[in-house]
Amino acid sequence: MSARSAGTRSTGRLIGVGVGPGDPELITLKAIRALAAADVVAHFAKAGSASHARAIAAQHLRPQVVELPLLYPVTTELPKCSKDYRDALRDFYEQAATDIAAHLDAGRTVAVICEGDPLFYGSYMHVHTRLAPRFPLEIIAGVTGMSGCWSAAGTPIAQGDDVFTVLPATLPEDELARRFSETNAAVVMKVGRHLPKVRRALETSGRLPRAIYVERGTMSDAKLVPLAAKPDDDAPYFAIVLVPGWEERP
Amino acid sequence: MSARSAGTRSTGRLIGVGVGPGDPELITLKAIRALAAADVVAHFAKAGSASHARAIAAQHLRPQVVELPLLYPVTTELPKCSKDYRDALRDFYEQAATDIAAHLDAGRTVAVICEGDPLFYGSYMHVHTRLAPRFPLEIIAGVTGMSGCWSAAGTPIAQGDDVFTVLPATLPEDELARRFSETNAAVVMKVGRHLPKVRRALETSGRLPRAIYVERGTMSDAKLVPLAAKPDDDAPYFAIVLVPGWEERP
Repeated sequence: MSARSAGTRSTGRLIGVGVGPGDPELITLKAIRALAAADVVAHFAKAGSASHARAIAAQHLRPQVVELPLLYPVTTELPKCSKDYRDALRDFYEQAATDIAAHLDAGRTVAVICEGDPLFYGSYMHVHTRLAPRFPLEIIAGVTGMSGCWSAAGTPIAQGDDVFTVLPATLPEDELARRFSETNAAVVMKVGRHLPKVRRALETSGRLPRAIYVERGTMSDAKLVPLAAKPDDDAPYFAIVLVPGWEERP
Repeated sequence: MSARSAGTRSTGRLIGVGVGPGDPELITLKAIRALAAADVVAHFAKAGSASHARAIAAQHLRPQVVELPLLYPVTTELPKCSKDYRDALRDFYEQAATDIAAHLDAGRTVAVICEGDPLFYGSYMHVHTRLAPRFPLEIIAGVTGMSGCWSAAGTPIAQGDDVFTVLPATLPEDELARRFSETNAAVVMKVGRHLPKVRRALETSGRLPRAIYVERGTMSDAKLVPLAAKPDDDAPYFAIVLVPGWEERP
C-alpha cells in the first residue's frame, strides 16, 4: 500500500509502550491504558523463547487482543559482526515493520511493548524509524533497566553536576579505562563475557572499589554484589555494572 | 534517639518514590500502591512554591495522610558556589532528615515523593544517605525526565553499542565540545542561561544539526524544537538539549 492511499483513509496508530525493567509493578498507568485500548499487541522475542515484555505486561492484555509476536531469526551460526548477520537482522526488521503496517493500514491501533524505555536502546526503535514517516505514533516512556538496577541496589548514581555515562562492555579495554576516569558515574551494559575486561579497566582507572555488579536487578532472584567481592567472572549478557558518582556525598 | 534504641523497637520504613517526569499518567503501579500505604508523604519544594512531585501524585494521596513539606531555604541572596550557600543547604538537608527520622522512629512509613527517578540527580538522595544507615528503606524507580523528553520528541536516543552521556550545562565550553565529540548520544541538563555556550559547543563539535531543545517535555504546553531553528537563547533552568545517537539508523 502506498503512502498516498494510506493518507486517504483512516489508518491506525502505532504506540511504543515501555513496560519497565521487569517488576510488573513498575509499569505506568499510561502503559496500562494503552494496552487496554490496543487492537493488536506486538512483542519481540527470540524464536523459541517467551517475550520478557509480554510476561511483564501479561495481566494487562485484553483476553481477545490480537497478538503479533516478532521472532528474531536464529542466527547463532553467524558472527555478530558479519554482513550475513546484519543482513538477516535488517530483513527481520523490514518484515516486522511490514507486518505492523498491515494492521495500521487496516485501521487498527498497534501497541509494541518494550522492556524498559522504548527509545533507550532496544528493538522497538528499528520498527519506529521505518514506520514513523507513514503513520501517526505515540511513545510511552518507561522505567529503564538501569534505573531498576540502581534502585534495587539502593545506590545514588548521580547528583548535582556529575557527568553520567552509559558504556557498552564491547569497547576496548583502554577506552573503557579512559572513559571510567573521565566520568563521575557510569553504567556498563551487556557485560556477559566482557566482565574480565571491564574489571581490569575499572582497576586501571581506580574505580573498582565503587563498582557494583547486578544481575536481574528488579527480579525476586536479583543478584547484587560489589564487583571487587565477586569471586568469578561468570556473567550473563544482560548483567550490568554500576559505578556510582557523587563521590563527595555526606 | 540513638541507633541502638532505634534497633530495639519497631521503626517505620522509608520509601523513595519516583513519580515520573510530569505527566501524571507516567506514574507506576508500585508508586501508587506505596502512596496508598504510607502514613506520611514528604515532598521537597521551594518556599512559596508548590511541589511538582506532589502535583503529579496528588490524586493518589490518601485524604487524611500526614504531609511533610520540606521547604528549601530562600538563598537567592547567596552565590551558589559560596560556603554560606553550601552550609545553608547542608543545614536544610540535616533538618529534613531529622524531621523524617522522627516519624520513622514513631513507627510510621514515610514516602518521600520525587520527580523522575529517586536516585538519578535530585533532592531525595540527600536524605537517603543520611537515613540509610539507621532505617529500613525501599526505592521505587521512576521514569526520568530525560526519558519523558525524548519520548515526547519521538526521537530514538541511543542504540546498539552507542555511548550515551548526561552532561551538566555548567561545564566549560571546551569540555562540552570535547565530550560532544566523544559520545554517540548526549543529554544536556539544567540548560538555562548556559544555552549560548551549549549551542557554541555543539557547533564546534559538529553536533548542532542533530540537537533538539526541549522545555516541559511531558506537559501539555511542551516546547520541542531543533536547536538550530530556535531563534533566541531564552531557556528556563530545567530545559534540556537532546543529541540523538544511532547515526547509522535506517
